[in-house]
Amino acid sequence: MSRISPVLDRLDQNLDQSLERLFGLLGIRSISTDPAFAADCRKGAEWLVAELKLIGFDASVRDTPGHPMVVAHHEGPVGSPHVLFYGHYDVQPVDPIELWDTDPFAPSIKEIEPGRTVITGRGSADDKGQLMTFVEACRAWKQVHGNLPCRVTILFEGEEESGSPSLKPFLAANAAELKADFALVCDTSMWNRETPSICVSLRGMVGEEVTVKAANRDLHSGLYGGPAANPIRILAKALADIHDKDGHVTIPGFYDGVEETPSQVLKSWEGLDETAETLLGPVGLSIPAGEKGRSVLELTWARPTAEFNGIIGGYTGKGFKTVIAAEASAKVSFRLVHKQDPKTIRAAFQAFVRERIPGDCSVEFHPHGGSPAIQLSYDSPFLAKAKDALSDEWEKQAVTTGGGGSIPVVGDFQTYLGMESLLVGFGLDDDRIHSPNEKYELSSFHKGQRSWARILDALTR
Amino acid sequence: MSRISPVLDRLDQNLDQSLERLFGLLGIRSISTDPAFAADCRKGAEWLVAELKLIGFDASVRDTPGHPMVVAHHEGPVGSPHVLFYGHYDVQPVDPIELWDTDPFAPSIKEIEPGRTVITGRGSADDKGQLMTFVEACRAWKQVHGNLPCRVTILFEGEEESGSPSLKPFLAANAAELKADFALVCDTSMWNRETPSICVSLRGMVGEEVTVKAANRDLHSGLYGGPAANPIRILAKALADIHDKDGHVTIPGFYDGVEETPSQVLKSWEGLDETAETLLGPVGLSIPAGEKGRSVLELTWARPTAEFNGIIGGYTGKGFKTVIAAEASAKVSFRLVHKQDPKTIRAAFQAFVRERIPGDCSVEFHPHGGSPAIQLSYDSPFLAKAKDALSDEWEKQAVTTGGGGSIPVVGDFQTYLGMESLLVGFGLDDDRIHSPNEKYELSSFHKGQRSWARILDALTR
Repeated sequence: MSRISPVLDRLDQNLDQSLERLFGLLGIRSISTDPAFAADCRKGAEWLVAELKLIGFDASVRDTPGHPMVVAHHEGPVGSPHVLFYGHYDVQPVDPIELWDTDPFAPSIKEIEPGRTVITGRGSADDKGQLMTFVEACRAWKQVHGNLPCRVTILFEGEEESGSPSLKPFLAANAAELKADFALVCDTSMWNRETPSICVSLRGMVGEEVTVKAANRDLHSGLYGGPAANPIRILAKALADIHDKDGHVTIPGFYDGVEETPSQVLKSWEGLDETAETLLGPVGLSIPAGEKGRSVLELTWARPTAEFNGIIGGYTGKGFKTVIAAEASAKVSFRLVHKQDPKTIRAAFQAFVRERIPGDCSVEFHPHGGSPAIQLSYDSPFLAKAKDALSDEWEKQAVTTGGGGSIPVVGDFQTYLGMESLLVGFGLDDDRIHSPNEKYELSSFHKGQRSWARILDALTR
Repeated sequence: MSRISPVLDRLDQNLDQSLERLFGLLGIRSISTDPAFAADCRKGAEWLVAELKLIGFDASVRDTPGHPMVVAHHEGPVGSPHVLFYGHYDVQPVDPIELWDTDPFAPSIKEIEPGRTVITGRGSADDKGQLMTFVEACRAWKQVHGNLPCRVTILFEGEEESGSPSLKPFLAANAAELKADFALVCDTSMWNRETPSICVSLRGMVGEEVTVKAANRDLHSGLYGGPAANPIRILAKALADIHDKDGHVTIPGFYDGVEETPSQVLKSWEGLDETAETLLGPVGLSIPAGEKGRSVLELTWARPTAEFNGIIGGYTGKGFKTVIAAEASAKVSFRLVHKQDPKTIRAAFQAFVRERIPGDCSVEFHPHGGSPAIQLSYDSPFLAKAKDALSDEWEKQAVTTGGGGSIPVVGDFQTYLGMESLLVGFGLDDDRIHSPNEKYELSSFHKGQRSWARILDALTR
């Protein structure tokens, strides 16, 4: 008999008690953004430390200038890998409270349609329900085998919903303690109700503000229109030059470090049935605007972009003013993939714009953040093992996905701990996180626990 | 002996009295934009009617819903041309009053440098001093010859500084009475202190606001960047396409109706020594941005433009927001010359933009005014005669200039009275109209009177 079967059986037997425990955590009003709930946040951290100690973790509440962290350690067999599990115990505010069908901090079980039961309450999906799937998996392993299959460090944050101000300093100050072979981050969704997924890439970003300056004051377009440089025209031309007619970015060197996505990965994405219609239809669009010949999922997960996030210049009030503005500016961002270097991209963009500025005009740049992309190798053995474990549990092939935006903690783990992350979660798109009537599927909670038990098993085999 | 010599002599003899009369008019606080001065405006109209009656005009104050008009008629010899003279008796407010060296409504004579004397006061240049040059010319003609050399109608407006709300309806209602062979408009400047000028062209304008709409809401650029259409990108591209690299406007049909300026006119403009350096230097620019190979004067006076007067879209506040906006808009204007048709230009621009809108996006247009260019024929006999008269008076060849912007009354005369205008004035660029310490050169006032006396003579010979 395999060593995982009795763990899974134990999780099935424990389900009711695990729900009771989750309800205990969900009852704590750990709203991190509102100082009035600071004591509740600490209570959440203390609750988790107590639970983890019961399981056998060396757990402690760790103070920060903000809400505390929870750090817990558990040894594994000699030579086993070391994983860091990340989740957050803080939750979003509950306003508007009148739109909730139930008390957000009095969780309940509800059958929303035949065969579909959910756990209600603030934090049920984001992220208390999710992090408890891992805690319960550890508990069952310990109960059945007296140990965990690998060395586990747990980091629970209490400020994720309020910008994680303490995270970077905490990682920097405790790098040696927290560094593991890789991280498991449980704050994401499944592809859909049937299909588990692992997110292995997140796009990086470079933000840049560009201001084109022409005359030393606003000019009358009748008196100066023709001879005088118009900064809106110069800016529009520079921005327009950034994409060719097929949606490629034309900045020299922009694609350096961009890799082609392996064909088997692209093929698996094709199977996800995400099309221009399904992605863009709900927002009123239908025609992919990015590089031609690539699917919407590839465009979002594995291709870089140049986007114009804001533009302003001249007279923008009601009516009309025949002015030639002294300056115009735009906020431009680049989503990066693979090995694109934020510094190189920023410099290349600046050079590209500078080349298009007439000799009597000038341009100024102001940086707004830059971070490289996160990309776990598609052929990572950890990835393959975790996928197999998920596929076994859900009886459906797990998919490898990417993320179009960034999840800061993943970049922080990379930066401060030199550690890659596997993003695995069991949320669903309709969980209404951050909104009234947040819920978490009972199947997510139950099969999530079983998934982690299997993943811990698989990673160490 | 010529018939003009004694008229000029009489003007020289009358100078002191003419100054006294001007001071009387300058003392009236006819600020049209401030309702507190409504009675002063009427007083200005009444003062002018009285003066004109003294000369022998059939003059009257004509009520409007706003400040009154002054209309005056004087017959000329049978078969002589009929000219309409236009000026305005209202003035700008005087704020900031503390910056005036003298009381704006207590005019004075001041020698500002050896040999250079000016008349100070609000309205001295704009436009009371100017309109009185014509009145004094008529007076001297009448005194010397008992008649005017041609039929003259005078129209003095009292709302020019507050948008002329009553002008169009007044012209429409009194078209038969006001229609003349052509108009003389005295509200402009000389080319410089030595060089008299006649402005015979004014560019027209089409204003258009364009709004590109993409998704039905703002999108997160991480989640949608790549597949989703970005309205700023679409708008920037459409605007950038409007000019080619040589500054030509690429909208099909845009140059229909644009004529090449006669080479002798271009040559006369070359003699004016207005260069990129002199025009653009003071505003911090140096490189003409319009159509290559044309002088800055030709670009401003005789070539059409497409200008972007305002643009806005997405996030434009402090910092950065990774948003893909739902819409972006720009205010675009075209300066028109010669026979360009505003309706055709507007339609061509709209078609040009529409062609560049992806199938899943939309565009909306909002018109902001449209008027054709004003262009008196360069070989008009009236123009030649007036130029000769000015050249005789100033002992320097008068130049034919254009205006880059519009002067609404000229278009209104065209529209409502089917009448062309010659724009002749004796202001200087440093007259500080609309500003504290407005002044009018004594030489402008004196030689301006003599110039009109000569022009009236020349036009009828």
